Amino acid sequence: MIIDIHGHYTTAPKALEAWRNRQIAGIKDPSAIPRVSELRISDDDIRETIDTNQLEQMRARGSDLTIFSPRASFMAHHIGDFAVSSTWAAICNELCFRVSRLYPDHFILAAMLPQSPGVAPETCVPELDRCVREYGAVAVNLNPDPSGGHWTSPPLTDRHWYPIYEKMVEHDLPAMIHVSTSCNPCFHTTGAHYINADTTAFMQLIQGDLFRDFPTLRFVIPHGGGAAPYHWGRYRGLAQELGKPLLRDHLLNNVFFDTCVYHQPGIDLLTRVVPIDNILFASEMIGAVRGVDPDTGHKYDDTRRYIEASTQLTPAHKRQIYEGNARRVYPRLDTALKQKGR
Amino acid sequence: MIIDIHGHYTTAPKALEAWRNRQIAGIKDPSAIPRVSELRISDDDIRETIDTNQLEQMRARGSDLTIFSPRASFMAHHIGDFAVSSTWAAICNELCFRVSRLYPDHFILAAMLPQSPGVAPETCVPELDRCVREYGAVAVNLNPDPSGGHWTSPPLTDRHWYPIYEKMVEHDLPAMIHVSTSCNPCFHTTGAHYINADTTAFMQLIQGDLFRDFPTLRFVIPHGGGAAPYHWGRYRGLAQELGKPLLRDHLLNNVFFDTCVYHQPGIDLLTRVVPIDNILFASEMIGAVRGVDPDTGHKYDDTRRYIEASTQLTPAHKRQIYEGNARRVYPRLDTALKQKGR
Repeated sequence: MIIDIHGHYTTAPKALEAWRNRQIAGIKDPSAIPRVSELRISDDDIRETIDTNQLEQMRARGSDLTIFSPRASFMAHHIGDFAVSSTWAAICNELCFRVSRLYPDHFILAAMLPQSPGVAPETCVPELDRCVREYGAVAVNLNPDPSGGHWTSPPLTDRHWYPIYEKMVEHDLPAMIHVSTSCNPCFHTTGAHYINADTTAFMQLIQGDLFRDFPTLRFVIPHGGGAAPYHWGRYRGLAQELGKPLLRDHLLNNVFFDTCVYHQPGIDLLTRVVPIDNILFASEMIGAVRGVDPDTGHKYDDTRRYIEASTQLTPAHKRQIYEGNARRVYPRLDTALKQKGR
Repeated sequence: MIIDIHGHYTTAPKALEAWRNRQIAGIKDPSAIPRVSELRISDDDIRETIDTNQLEQMRARGSDLTIFSPRASFMAHHIGDFAVSSTWAAICNELCFRVSRLYPDHFILAAMLPQSPGVAPETCVPELDRCVREYGAVAVNLNPDPSGGHWTSPPLTDRHWYPIYEKMVEHDLPAMIHVSTSCNPCFHTTGAHYINADTTAFMQLIQGDLFRDFPTLRFVIPHGGGAAPYHWGRYRGLAQELGKPLLRDHLLNNVFFDTCVYHQPGIDLLTRVVPIDNILFASEMIGAVRGVDPDTGHKYDDTRRYIEASTQLTPAHKRQIYEGNARRVYPRLDTALKQKGR
């Protein structure tokens, strides 16, 4: 089985964006705030946006199941206050849940959280609980910078975040560390902010001792870990200068990287540098980079091709990357699969 | 000849830091501002800090000449106002110039600029001019974020920066894009802020069309280009989505990467992905990562070993990386060397 641990509902029906635009207009003009019930998306609307997009690509590429979450750049936690984020997160999570109910063999939910800059993270706990209990969520996406490129929250190792970590541990739920749209003109959203956030989070985790407090907490750092694998020597050396244990002891029981790296040399570096146990297959397909690479004739985000073409990976390694590691890092996914005899 | 294009005076005499601390104290208490003449560093003081540090390492590693600039993390442009930055830059540049005068065969100056957040970049031009004319500077370090991790300046492609670019073109001078200390607790200075800035700058250049306005402007992106080479497929794909030319046409006549990547797989990726013409040897030695890699028994920042051990590079490639590219990208360096018959 091939599990893609990183997919977003980037193709959601246009009605969703239209409703969101009305919600944003309502921040300045409360009389314009739309009711949740005014958003109407039918099952057929959903099927139309999945069948010829994610599902078609999954079939073409041979991946079986996608851990599916709301569109990352649309989370936009910096917009409005907690009430705005809360309503928006509930809508987006429900919509992804409906995808998972319509295609139970192909999609399973990872929830976004109703984060809001300056608001205590414990306010996210009810939505997290709800998504686990009612929607069968197997993970959450945690935004280390709800300000959208101004980085006004404390580092991930700060106790500020502990209420979320306590819930994650309670539910045995990993978090993907994933920012949203940048509203800082210095940072292109998918070309700078996403990658910088991955790198920043990894370095924050090196600096701290978070997993001493939470030995079973697990983070997935997407986009191949930002710059971390390319600069693995730098990070090993910095950990050493900070008096931390070796990276494999300090972080690698708790920190994992996905394979959203869109060329062969990048995947080859990732699999050469990072232990196979810590690499999980993902594509973030129909995401930041949707085009066809003129050098290969294939889509940049068709990451399975790079894994298949690797001369370093054995068939056993590939099974781990495609399936085994995901079942270990996302235990609720493993349970859900086993209940279906998969 | 082996030219290391990225060295900072990280070992400067303690008197420098003591003077700086008094200058910083003087921001709150103007009566405490020290006079420049109170900073006394003798030639012997300088020799003591160079002989057993940079020079010893250079001899051990076989590098001949270092392009040498003030300590990057101490530039700290976010501290004080333009007057504070201006005095500090003048002192630091003069000190590095004195190193180059004491060791004319081994060091040549790259100047820091007296940047200050919110202050127009044209204020840096007199110091830039002075360093070229009086100190023989062959490059400048340009900080894309003088706020120190808050990213309050416009992107590098904005006209805001053009007065500096015009001077660079006039003097045929490249700039290394190099941030300083992060005062944002989210960003570790050398583990996150440096690498993020490299990635951010590269993406800003993709988004813009700066080299249409300045066809001869040249930037060196340090630390192996941040995350860019590891995510080369992503960046090629993003340029494509933005309707830009291929990266080699859009940027690679003007943008270069150094080899400050502290492990073999990273250097192997860099030399596999980026054209050899765009890679310049550097170590940033006695910098962010000073330790010995327990896996190799050698210092992490001994980057020559990775170049030498590369199975991809021919002797001609190595000569380009060690010398040829530096002479082309830093024409004033080439002129200075030729005047000495080197």
